[in-house]
Amino acid sequence: MDPKAVAIQFRDFYYGIFDTNRSQLQPLYRPSSMLTWEGQEFLGTESILEKLTALPFEKIRREITTTDVQPCGDDGILIFITGALIIDDGQPIQFSQTFRLKQESGSFVVANDIFRLNLG
Amino acid sequence: MDPKAVAIQFRDFYYGIFDTNRSQLQPLYRPSSMLTWEGQEFLGTESILEKLTALPFEKIRREITTTDVQPCGDDGILIFITGALIIDDGQPIQFSQTFRLKQESGSFVVANDIFRLNLG
Repeated sequence: MDPKAVAIQFRDFYYGIFDTNRSQLQPLYRPSSMLTWEGQEFLGTESILEKLTALPFEKIRREITTTDVQPCGDDGILIFITGALIIDDGQPIQFSQTFRLKQESGSFVVANDIFRLNLG
Repeated sequence: MDPKAVAIQFRDFYYGIFDTNRSQLQPLYRPSSMLTWEGQEFLGTESILEKLTALPFEKIRREITTTDVQPCGDDGILIFITGALIIDDGQPIQFSQTFRLKQESGSFVVANDIFRLNLG
């Protein structure tokens, strides 16, 4: 497997769903998945989806600036993304996000997910 | 082990050395360690140290804004840090950095290291 190809494919797939219909992200998480969203911690598919679907914005556009990828452990992939979010036609807000993907039954799921807006 | 306590201790130790004497970071990397620095990729202690010691700045101050921590795999720790660098008394520059630490012979070493300046 080519970690970079997997990472780019995952990124485009994930954000494609995130930016249009967040409830459909459910198959990408597992009971052991962890999300830290702006410092708030969530464990497991249900808790993560509850957070993501409750986010108070409807329409998102996204401009990706950088995508860094490293293999991680035996069959994992670490992805570090920076870019800008345009929420409900507002001003672009910088964000960064780290994912660790792991393989499960032949497909990749999100083991770790850390998201931050960079308001500095 | 408390991943958050380890992460904070590592962060302060690592940046304390980085900001004063980068060549002393050598014991924290391994032949399998990976660094992606502003998109450039380095594998292994020697290659990573060569890059870090060649960085063209002398004096760094650092202001940490956020530190997010998650356990990662069996005995790993994922750390995501945002903050600002003040290089040679210049203007603060935002940065973000992701580390994955793993345990080796009872101490933590850097398995993955991804660094980006956020100039957006």
